[in-house]
Amino acid sequence: MTGRPSEFEFIDTMLAPLAAGYAGALGLGDDAAVIDVRPGYQLAITKDALVAGVHFFSDDPPEDIAAKMLRVNLSDLAAMGARPIGYLTALMLPDWIDREWLERFVAGLAADQRQFDVHLVGGDTASTPGPLALTVTAFGDVRAGQALLRSGARPGDRVVVSGTIGDGALGLAVMQGRLTGLSDPDRQYLIGRYRRPRPRVGLGLALAGVASAAIDVSDGLIADLGHICARSNAGARIRAQDLPLSPAARAALDRDPDLIETVLTGGDDYELCLAVPAARRGSLPALASGQDAPLTDIGEIVTGAGVVAIGKDGRGLRFKATGFRHF
Amino acid sequence: MTGRPSEFEFIDTMLAPLAAGYAGALGLGDDAAVIDVRPGYQLAITKDALVAGVHFFSDDPPEDIAAKMLRVNLSDLAAMGARPIGYLTALMLPDWIDREWLERFVAGLAADQRQFDVHLVGGDTASTPGPLALTVTAFGDVRAGQALLRSGARPGDRVVVSGTIGDGALGLAVMQGRLTGLSDPDRQYLIGRYRRPRPRVGLGLALAGVASAAIDVSDGLIADLGHICARSNAGARIRAQDLPLSPAARAALDRDPDLIETVLTGGDDYELCLAVPAARRGSLPALASGQDAPLTDIGEIVTGAGVVAIGKDGRGLRFKATGFRHF
Repeated sequence: MTGRPSEFEFIDTMLAPLAAGYAGALGLGDDAAVIDVRPGYQLAITKDALVAGVHFFSDDPPEDIAAKMLRVNLSDLAAMGARPIGYLTALMLPDWIDREWLERFVAGLAADQRQFDVHLVGGDTASTPGPLALTVTAFGDVRAGQALLRSGARPGDRVVVSGTIGDGALGLAVMQGRLTGLSDPDRQYLIGRYRRPRPRVGLGLALAGVASAAIDVSDGLIADLGHICARSNAGARIRAQDLPLSPAARAALDRDPDLIETVLTGGDDYELCLAVPAARRGSLPALASGQDAPLTDIGEIVTGAGVVAIGKDGRGLRFKATGFRHF
Repeated sequence: MTGRPSEFEFIDTMLAPLAAGYAGALGLGDDAAVIDVRPGYQLAITKDALVAGVHFFSDDPPEDIAAKMLRVNLSDLAAMGARPIGYLTALMLPDWIDREWLERFVAGLAADQRQFDVHLVGGDTASTPGPLALTVTAFGDVRAGQALLRSGARPGDRVVVSGTIGDGALGLAVMQGRLTGLSDPDRQYLIGRYRRPRPRVGLGLALAGVASAAIDVSDGLIADLGHICARSNAGARIRAQDLPLSPAARAALDRDPDLIETVLTGGDDYELCLAVPAARRGSLPALASGQDAPLTDIGEIVTGAGVVAIGKDGRGLRFKATGFRHF
């Protein structure tokens, strides 16, 4: 039978096993979880909301929805240089969610818990007459005073990004039918990047003492680098032609060079954008290979304000939008 | 003008002031908040979701919606004996939410922040095509090993509740037109109790070393006391005629004695239900008066399982439902 388990059955039989490895979760059976923080550490805590039709599609595979809701939060912890410990969920479920969907969703969480060494510690479930909506609160620890902030960039610092930029936004464009003509493997690659972010947890941990500022790219590279600039009272110049692109994204841009705007402003990358003092750039290659996270120098922090992306002709690109907004 | 501020304007001008008093919130301008935990303490953390049409009414005053979303979480911390420190929000806002609504909502949060000495430290905002939906993650600290759990009740312990029971559920019945014939002041009192819970924060803090188990009454007294029993491998017997009732609830029951079922199973009380070893009951009167929180002995923990409510005739009451479910 499919049907829908009761709230108590769902918690006791499907969610509680996700909490079994963390004693402070109290088996999801108390009013709150109780978290130990190591001496000399602080707790980093973040919270994101995902609404079907806004941040994902309600017919996305439940495993992917589970992975995305968890990973966008782990990406925030990575951008702080924090080690993930646990998370709480609020699951607002419409009527059409059935037992099979919940089982696949929980299986997705279980797989990611193993991959990222985190545990469910608490949360809430509710029915909703609206779309499927999910919020996650993730927390981790970071050595006291060592969190990577957005505010530490200084003129002269290099601007560095991990992985490849633009895949998530291009994947969304494929799913929405706005981007056609790609090979099927390229389409699938880009959609996979949209649905399953890869939070740069290990890289974030390794960046303590190296990066002067960090952010994860969720709103779009221009907007998120702009957040670093605003918090650091500085500007940035980046070279569009040096952006690290996946083969699939390269194929898309070869067909339509105007897609550079989607790449730079589209969001959903969940890569890290860093400022790194020039004197420390020499440590990046070893760090990148150790974390299996390619790092690419795309520009520099400058005096002033705002982000300028320079095109092949040496002139600044102009865009209609500077970042995707979920609001 | 009313209209709707942009996400960034909303965060910068309306939410950021709520974070100004807590340095670790980083002005809501980073990827995560950074929390210091005092040596010798643990962090208690809880998360609740509220959906319009399920947990509140979308035309409730925005100040009350703000208070309710925060207070139901503070009530969970109270039930753990934790001192509230801060909270994160996820606000999923439908199109009809305008600037005036947001201003009143934020004013409600500001008032409660002062009353309960907590700060906003992070969160997320998103648009939704569905109903207004809000989730809060609240955290506080508790001396290591001293959290009040549901699992510590032992046969012979007294069952004690704070304040009055049933007001919230009766207030909901008034709002839904299911409960009529009350005086206007009684109606307003009950509605106010539904809309604005009073979390027993000070009482929870004072119960360390006194109560053997605690829970906040959100699903209904029978169901929540049942959670204590289940976690403690025990049962409970309570005396229905000894339930502490407000004058308004008493007036409602005088007209319709069957409302005792609503009182016992309706939920939304946000009072504390405690197990207290009989040897410590003597400390309750001073504790109650010190916290301005009346405490009433309504029964005892027994060997066995489940909760029995005894009526005037000495026989167990039988109910159709044992607790309101939001799932």
